[in-house]
Amino acid sequence: MAVYTHLGAEDLAELIGHYDVGDLVSAKGIAEGVSNSNWLIETTGGRYILTMYERRIDTGELPFFLGLLDHLAERDCPVPATIHDRSGAAFRTVDGKAVALIEFLPGVSPNQPTATQAQALGTALAEMHLAAQDYALSRENDLAPVGTLAMLEALDADALAAIDPALPSAIDRGREVVAAWPDDLPSSIIHSDLFPDNVLMLGDAVSGMIDFYFACQGAMAYDLAVTHAAWAFDGTGRTYDPAIGSALVEGYCAVRPLGDDERAAMPLLAQAACLRFVASRAEDWIETPADALVTRKDPMDFVRRWDFYAENGAALFA
Amino acid sequence: MAVYTHLGAEDLAELIGHYDVGDLVSAKGIAEGVSNSNWLIETTGGRYILTMYERRIDTGELPFFLGLLDHLAERDCPVPATIHDRSGAAFRTVDGKAVALIEFLPGVSPNQPTATQAQALGTALAEMHLAAQDYALSRENDLAPVGTLAMLEALDADALAAIDPALPSAIDRGREVVAAWPDDLPSSIIHSDLFPDNVLMLGDAVSGMIDFYFACQGAMAYDLAVTHAAWAFDGTGRTYDPAIGSALVEGYCAVRPLGDDERAAMPLLAQAACLRFVASRAEDWIETPADALVTRKDPMDFVRRWDFYAENGAALFA
Repeated sequence: MAVYTHLGAEDLAELIGHYDVGDLVSAKGIAEGVSNSNWLIETTGGRYILTMYERRIDTGELPFFLGLLDHLAERDCPVPATIHDRSGAAFRTVDGKAVALIEFLPGVSPNQPTATQAQALGTALAEMHLAAQDYALSRENDLAPVGTLAMLEALDADALAAIDPALPSAIDRGREVVAAWPDDLPSSIIHSDLFPDNVLMLGDAVSGMIDFYFACQGAMAYDLAVTHAAWAFDGTGRTYDPAIGSALVEGYCAVRPLGDDERAAMPLLAQAACLRFVASRAEDWIETPADALVTRKDPMDFVRRWDFYAENGAALFA
Repeated sequence: MAVYTHLGAEDLAELIGHYDVGDLVSAKGIAEGVSNSNWLIETTGGRYILTMYERRIDTGELPFFLGLLDHLAERDCPVPATIHDRSGAAFRTVDGKAVALIEFLPGVSPNQPTATQAQALGTALAEMHLAAQDYALSRENDLAPVGTLAMLEALDADALAAIDPALPSAIDRGREVVAAWPDDLPSSIIHSDLFPDNVLMLGDAVSGMIDFYFACQGAMAYDLAVTHAAWAFDGTGRTYDPAIGSALVEGYCAVRPLGDDERAAMPLLAQAACLRFVASRAEDWIETPADALVTRKDPMDFVRRWDFYAENGAALFA
């Protein structure tokens, strides 16, 4: 959560001048996004989010991400459309960095979602999966289990054990997940990171799904499993909320019922989701100095979810 | 620039419910303020800034700060008014921290102000000084030269020299400033920190002066000197822009001409302004780890301004 780059009023006004959105009225750097800087922009024509891509994102992938937003928004998914500049370009360059102007969506991210909200999200996720199926571009999933296992294997075993003595065993468990991974589940473009921060709600309605920068080709049921792990537990992963978990799956299946193969795979997919966040959090933990002003997220929060799915997954998704 | 506290949608909606501003539509943590967290809030009634006071600010002082905003806004200064809750309170408490809802003002902070903008700011500053003269509350200036000199003297001399070999000499120079400090200049409530980030402009008009959390009783001419040091140089303090400096003073004097005593004191007041930022930046530099994700500001940027004022101040403000 940061704004990494200072963009002055003059830079912003110059940039906004390339779009057919009126004159700049206000610009506030907002504390969202981990790999980019964002501003909430107000013009005489409306409100927008300006994103500057700082790192992690290969600008060669921007046509995939920004085109996906347009594709989904055109199909009435609650996703911010990309605002194109007067020449039709989806992104521009400022100071050597790519920037995109996207639609501002109302809504707030739920901190303690209700079952009704989880059901609405399940429905929105299924609709998004269906709407994305005829998207023309594709992107490989570099955070598929085989990739996240490799990330975990590359970390120093002593450093992992220093975070928690139980953490190194995630490597062997991850190998089992990868060995059992089904390659033939129905796929589409998946969000892959639909934590509550990436969902905006107005009351019980989903007004926005945002931050598609992990979107890629993948098993739709895996995306549901990621969302389940992200929504149905308290932050530490110690307490599972069955009402949220059931409502999410129910909302999803109301639009796109899971096939038998998907349902059977759910316990494994949920464990794969945990592997992924264990690996990325462990890497961030080891790479982030303990005294940095960034809160490190404990990978054990997802080891606990993993334990839960290993034990209860079969009954949970039956 | 940070949001230090996570406030979920439910917390925000509950809080907003105490104000007569409609229902919560959107909330974005914004990257402004160094001693507090801020959100840009949209409700069905309008837009507001929600500030949570995290540190440095004694909540016992909030009635002074928030009442000052109301006092100035009522007198048509471009200052955000405080929104009071239904019981009339200017601030509330969430999770043990004080929060205040204030008016949202349009405008953007100039990165490279023009002389026309500097002149408008000088005028707005003088009007603010006059409007504040009958404000009923008062607050001592803990960053007056005697205080900032003490701050500098308390720092380790080796640590100062490690930043720059020329830095320790600021202590002796600061003592000279304090010894020569005039106590009888006309005073009012002063802003004390009116850098371009704390000014919002729409075109050439000042649409907002914000972040009054250093406001205190003080010499009005000293506030003009602080603003001069903050606006009339490039960031490093190497280049003085005479058009900006002159326009600022001219705009100020058009509303409130400086007395002979103030004009004579300006070179000293400007050096005192430099002492203050040298001291606070040196303290921050020494207390901030080199690998922290915060950009440390170089105290030498204000040693250079200090040199400039020592050499040219008499001619500059004649």
